[in-house]
Amino acid sequence: MRNQVINSLDKVNQITKAWTPKIIEQLNDYHIKVAIFDGDFIWHKHDDTDELFMVLEGNMTIHFRDKHVTLNPGDLYVVPKGVEHKPSTEKACKVLLIEPAGTLNTGDADSDLQASNKDWI
Amino acid sequence: MRNQVINSLDKVNQITKAWTPKIIEQLNDYHIKVAIFDGDFIWHKHDDTDELFMVLEGNMTIHFRDKHVTLNPGDLYVVPKGVEHKPSTEKACKVLLIEPAGTLNTGDADSDLQASNKDWI
Repeated sequence: MRNQVINSLDKVNQITKAWTPKIIEQLNDYHIKVAIFDGDFIWHKHDDTDELFMVLEGNMTIHFRDKHVTLNPGDLYVVPKGVEHKPSTEKACKVLLIEPAGTLNTGDADSDLQASNKDWI
Repeated sequence: MRNQVINSLDKVNQITKAWTPKIIEQLNDYHIKVAIFDGDFIWHKHDDTDELFMVLEGNMTIHFRDKHVTLNPGDLYVVPKGVEHKPSTEKACKVLLIEPAGTLNTGDADSDLQASNKDWI
């Protein structure tokens, strides 16, 4: 960890490319990440872990095969492990994520949107 | 977990007593909690886990034996395991915490401020 105060919005404002989560802090073996979500991501799931999303700025929808949920600033949602989901936004949305270190943004999917799971910002 | 959208500020606004963290969501074996901090807590440490604090509203200081840090809204800080710390505020401060399920707010200290580690809100 960093032993310093981190502002998640300041950190996400340094990101220029959508769908490239960056690590901002570590809690035991979990990573706290920020990302810009913009448009449609891909359907995927994480077989080994739940995944927490919290909206910092903007709005996002998480689609599931049988429903969808919409998150506004300050809202959080935990996607259970093994559940297929597709994040989607109408405009750029700034998001905080929490998941075990090493988790891939694309989960089990084969996609060009797969990003590094090791980049700090 | 709850399979529903949770707003951390809405949840903390339902709390009436300071220093009584309430669980709002679960991520694998971690709990997401909210609490009102008001005044001085006690010196303590958590020998087995890091602890994440994020300020939702207000300001808080985390004192360490050799320094202190001040958190404003949106700021987060991870206190490393085994490190003595004492949260403190001048006015009521609304805080989000993340730590393994079962973590006690008072850590290794014997204090009347010890709260339940099982209460959801």
